[in-house]
Amino acid sequence: MRDLFHSELDQLAERLQEMCGLVGAAMGSATRALLAADLRLAESVIAADVQIDEAQRELDERAVAILARQAPVATDLRVVVASLRMSSSLERMGDLARHVALLARLRYPHKAVPGELELVFAEMGATAQRIASKAGRVIATRDLALAAELAKDDDALDDLHRQVFAAVSGEGWSASPETTADITLASRFYERYGDHAVSLAKRISYLVTGDLDGIGEPAPTV
Amino acid sequence: MRDLFHSELDQLAERLQEMCGLVGAAMGSATRALLAADLRLAESVIAADVQIDEAQRELDERAVAILARQAPVATDLRVVVASLRMSSSLERMGDLARHVALLARLRYPHKAVPGELELVFAEMGATAQRIASKAGRVIATRDLALAAELAKDDDALDDLHRQVFAAVSGEGWSASPETTADITLASRFYERYGDHAVSLAKRISYLVTGDLDGIGEPAPTV
Repeated sequence: MRDLFHSELDQLAERLQEMCGLVGAAMGSATRALLAADLRLAESVIAADVQIDEAQRELDERAVAILARQAPVATDLRVVVASLRMSSSLERMGDLARHVALLARLRYPHKAVPGELELVFAEMGATAQRIASKAGRVIATRDLALAAELAKDDDALDDLHRQVFAAVSGEGWSASPETTADITLASRFYERYGDHAVSLAKRISYLVTGDLDGIGEPAPTV
Repeated sequence: MRDLFHSELDQLAERLQEMCGLVGAAMGSATRALLAADLRLAESVIAADVQIDEAQRELDERAVAILARQAPVATDLRVVVASLRMSSSLERMGDLARHVALLARLRYPHKAVPGELELVFAEMGATAQRIASKAGRVIATRDLALAAELAKDDDALDDLHRQVFAAVSGEGWSASPETTADITLASRFYERYGDHAVSLAKRISYLVTGDLDGIGEPAPTV
């Protein structure tokens, strides 16, 4: 049986997993709202982001309370500090999902994404959700193979991001400048979402191996 | 005279101020490189970003060492945790300056920003530098009036960001889709740079007043 201190660390990890679930669902709904110009769904994602912010605040308070009461050292200390970092990444992933939903709302009743890029954005949304789900499992299991898989999924997301740029810069592109600006930003939101998940997986990897560069670029930035 | 522990906290603050200087200089140079299509200057900003990353790593190691050795509580603990957050914001500001420089390099020998938006981007660069400089002084002085000023500067940056979007969406816009995508992202980089500085100022404000919402939106996200 785990002692009280380690139960508290377990609870931090559980909260982080819950946040992974929330931000994955948010990006899934935001993508559907974006592709279908679904105003109600977009509104619901925007409204739900306060729950993600609240989850971060609670988690951070818990982490600071653990630091104050238990004064952990060595690996335990690094786990608590990493939790603070990971909650920031997750809060930011929630913001990025909200940004996608805000774009859907801004262009309603029109669709922000032109038909020729719908499949690319659908794939981005599915990949982002897969990444969030894997991030939750990486936190739960500390499985480094899964962390490496997540990094590969992020590479796929980066490829899709590049596809959007190639489409915009290509000969056949005839959308309005406004649409060009919209989808450039939207694509960036997905790309950053993936970066934050990779950063999170790297923090777990670091806790397990002590090697910050264990699972490939990019280095954790948050 | 300050005791050893508080000298260590002072040193954290000094490192954060140094990072403010580095990221301010980086965005200043990146902006000049962007507007003048100056390849060498762009390369120098890109190369110098590793110093900012290194500064963050050192600062974070110091902060974790303080947690481990001194087990601070109450306000002192919050100062150390806030330092970890602020170093993340600053590291990210460095990344955003690097992104501006990468764009300058990508489009060299052409200018990425069309003539009609040069003044807007010059103003964005100047505002971003002013914000970084104020962030350093907010850390040094904990002056809340200065933190509020910084938030106003960020509002100005947001206005410039909106001006870019208005230009892109306007009747007279005739630039290529590639240029539209470039300047949409570049403008976003400045806007995020400002957000991170505001987040940093809010953390200082919180340490002084205990009120997280003291100096206006947006809420700290990193």
